[in-house]
Amino acid sequence: MISYTKVFQATAFSSSSPKEVEILKEHLFCINADGLIEKVVGPEADDYKYLLDLYQGTENFHRLADGQYLLPGFIDLHVHAPQWAQSGTALDLPLYDWLNTYTFPLESRFSDIHFAKEIYEDVVATLLANGTTTALYFATIHKEASLLLAKICTEKGQRGLVGKVVMDDPEQTPENYRDADTQTALADTEDFILTVKELAKSVKQGVYPVITPRFIPSCTDEALKGLGELAAKYDTHIQSHCSESDWAHTYVQDRFNKNDAFALHDFGLLGDKSVMAHCNFLNDDDAELFANTGTAVSHCPISNAYFANSVIPIAHLHAKGVEIGLGSDISGGFSPSLFDNARQAVISSRMLDDGVNPSLPAEKRGVPNSRITINEAFYFATAGGGESLSLPIGRLAENYAWDVQIIDTTIASAKLPIYSTNEDLFDVFQKIMYLARPENIREVWVQGEKVHSRM
Amino acid sequence: MISYTKVFQATAFSSSSPKEVEILKEHLFCINADGLIEKVVGPEADDYKYLLDLYQGTENFHRLADGQYLLPGFIDLHVHAPQWAQSGTALDLPLYDWLNTYTFPLESRFSDIHFAKEIYEDVVATLLANGTTTALYFATIHKEASLLLAKICTEKGQRGLVGKVVMDDPEQTPENYRDADTQTALADTEDFILTVKELAKSVKQGVYPVITPRFIPSCTDEALKGLGELAAKYDTHIQSHCSESDWAHTYVQDRFNKNDAFALHDFGLLGDKSVMAHCNFLNDDDAELFANTGTAVSHCPISNAYFANSVIPIAHLHAKGVEIGLGSDISGGFSPSLFDNARQAVISSRMLDDGVNPSLPAEKRGVPNSRITINEAFYFATAGGGESLSLPIGRLAENYAWDVQIIDTTIASAKLPIYSTNEDLFDVFQKIMYLARPENIREVWVQGEKVHSRM
Ligand SMILES: [Zn+2]
Ligand SMILES: [Zn+2]
Repeated sequence: MISYTKVFQATAFSSSSPKEVEILKEHLFCINADGLIEKVVGPEADDYKYLLDLYQGTENFHRLADGQYLLPGFIDLHVHAPQWAQSGTALDLPLYDWLNTYTFPLESRFSDIHFAKEIYEDVVATLLANGTTTALYFATIHKEASLLLAKICTEKGQRGLVGKVVMDDPEQTPENYRDADTQTALADTEDFILTVKELAKSVKQGVYPVITPRFIPSCTDEALKGLGELAAKYDTHIQSHCSESDWAHTYVQDRFNKNDAFALHDFGLLGDKSVMAHCNFLNDDDAELFANTGTAVSHCPISNAYFANSVIPIAHLHAKGVEIGLGSDISGGFSPSLFDNARQAVISSRMLDDGVNPSLPAEKRGVPNSRITINEAFYFATAGGGESLSLPIGRLAENYAWDVQIIDTTIASAKLPIYSTNEDLFDVFQKIMYLARPENIREVWVQGEKVHSRM
Repeated sequence: MISYTKVFQATAFSSSSPKEVEILKEHLFCINADGLIEKVVGPEADDYKYLLDLYQGTENFHRLADGQYLLPGFIDLHVHAPQWAQSGTALDLPLYDWLNTYTFPLESRFSDIHFAKEIYEDVVATLLANGTTTALYFATIHKEASLLLAKICTEKGQRGLVGKVVMDDPEQTPENYRDADTQTALADTEDFILTVKELAKSVKQGVYPVITPRFIPSCTDEALKGLGELAAKYDTHIQSHCSESDWAHTYVQDRFNKNDAFALHDFGLLGDKSVMAHCNFLNDDDAELFANTGTAVSHCPISNAYFANSVIPIAHLHAKGVEIGLGSDISGGFSPSLFDNARQAVISSRMLDDGVNPSLPAEKRGVPNSRITINEAFYFATAGGGESLSLPIGRLAENYAWDVQIIDTTIASAKLPIYSTNEDLFDVFQKIMYLARPENIREVWVQGEKVHSRM
């Protein structure tokens, strides 16, 4: 006797490859008690009618209404949770002023746990409402507030990967916002790891501690080395910023006489569970190192326009075998939506492809073969994010978590321009990717549980 | 005895110059029966308390709730109304395929007035819901459907400027979608102008016929000449596409041995009421001609990423004295929101400024001094659009039309990240510009009338 916890009947979109979107028309998605997709059954399959008869009419059966579609939940590979409080502001400032006048003073306020609670509850709820079912978070240097963020993720049902930030080098950090010293930074990190691992035991969707040196310039060698050792000891995820801007890239070359990628590798910070934000200035050797170690790039297209001095050659890196996902990089990027970031990923890639300066002849303007399609951007926001984190998420396929967003294209206040019930489903997919807003995201599920809904 | 039709008490944002946003804190906006702002009164003014006492408590008095702010309505300088039906689709195709496989077949369907009604009602309502109070529309070649679009604007309360498209050159237009011949194209245009001018007599917010050669490649010399004469005869607005892409730019050079700008000028198509879309490839002589004739550029930043092969040097053109506004260019651009386009205008300008190719050294990568701020993008979406159309719109100032959007930053499902009632108002402005969505746009007014509201 088959016994699924839930069965959904829906038309769904899921990546079958980086360039191809599979349209699963009127499929049945059978969910088990662990919140995993145990079986996906198409209308042509032998047991489709049998399953339909068995579950239809029961409380475990969910049929999506006409005009509703399933997408995998989005996976945001780079969010500075505290910076949600300043999202959208100060983006006209140079990086140095943005950090020192806005960002560091804001992050330092997270020593106040009440302030932290207000912002963190809001950012997790906001990301869920934007369809983000998994997020890789930078918190702040504060152990207590970072733990609170992990707890809020568990309570709200989001799959959170959370890092207490380490920044201990007095040369490159402000006096009022840095770790007390290297040993404290490492001790707090280890304590944080142990507490989150304990917390995780009772959390269905998972919650994960993440080793999080802010970036090489803000950390001492000793801290970087210690963090690499902790990552190995506890087999944790690792995140940092890598080769983001001309300044950061040059700083690391001056300090180590090598690029970020190799410097991070020397400290044991690259590996299958590593995700590095930005990475605009990776060269081919760096890319090969990423591919060989299984390190992923978190591509943050909106943020890059403000702080990365360039467009990352994402098609080139992907062709080199590097794992790639998308990041909002709140608040270097203003938007909490991976729909917005997927759109910008396509746009930015086309600007790299065509080039930008109209006073140059076309053949000298851009970098040919740099453009990506909306299918690839969707892949990066979903399946690519799952691969980057080495977790079974981001696809609507068997043995993947039931992490989904239900998109309604028909609600009056946010209707998509679809005028025929026979509209080509690939056109529907594209309209969703380019035009959907949080209003269209009617329900969000993580690991088989409904964690967000709108009336 | 003073007698205003309406008095609003509100905190408002309006451009005082292209680079500066004026914050009108708790001002009174006094509206007269023509729907114009007759008086703006700040709390320090002598008659503030007098006016407040006079109107407070009356049905003509509107005080915005806490967390609500006024912005001028947006002015969209380039919308292909029929293309809303395909917005978001086929953007991965080359221009030629996009036009011939999607766009022209879609536009040809507007010979069916019932189909036209469905799409046009939807696009006008959608733009209003996105805060767009004035729109400069391309319709199709069909006179009847183009008139319907003008009528729908008047009925829904939007200030519409509408063009029946002319494309009569058999060499560059598809057999099943072109004007019957040049004389018919010109006669239909004249008829369209006269009918819309008649319609306009009873329309408070105005409705305007627009001379609309699609672009030079699709028109014969005779048509272009005739359209220039009609524009002069009836003193109408004029719109077209100009120097958009490498292909279009080169085509016109080959045909006329000059750039679009000078070719259009020869046909009498540049002037104070002319708005040219895209214009990425204007050189300095072209720009000077634009400035001297009062011709405006409609900057369409999202669309340009797909079809313009470059980023327009908008800061440079603006410094040269060219009038500039923003256009969504539905559906070359997927978004009906000028918020989205203002964000992309900033992003694109930064990409031109910094450059895009990370394998080039920083000093050879970009075009310095190309970036614009969010203040300038706001200016282009509002006051700049008004100047481009030579209409008294786009500012919250005396003798301007009462065209506004009321933004609510506090509603539960779309709350902006504002945590203090003392938040700096310029930060509030930036959060609105970067994060507001249609949900936040609670009311839209045009010429003193409420034309859109959400519960
Ligand atoms: Zn970051
Ligand atoms: Zn256009």
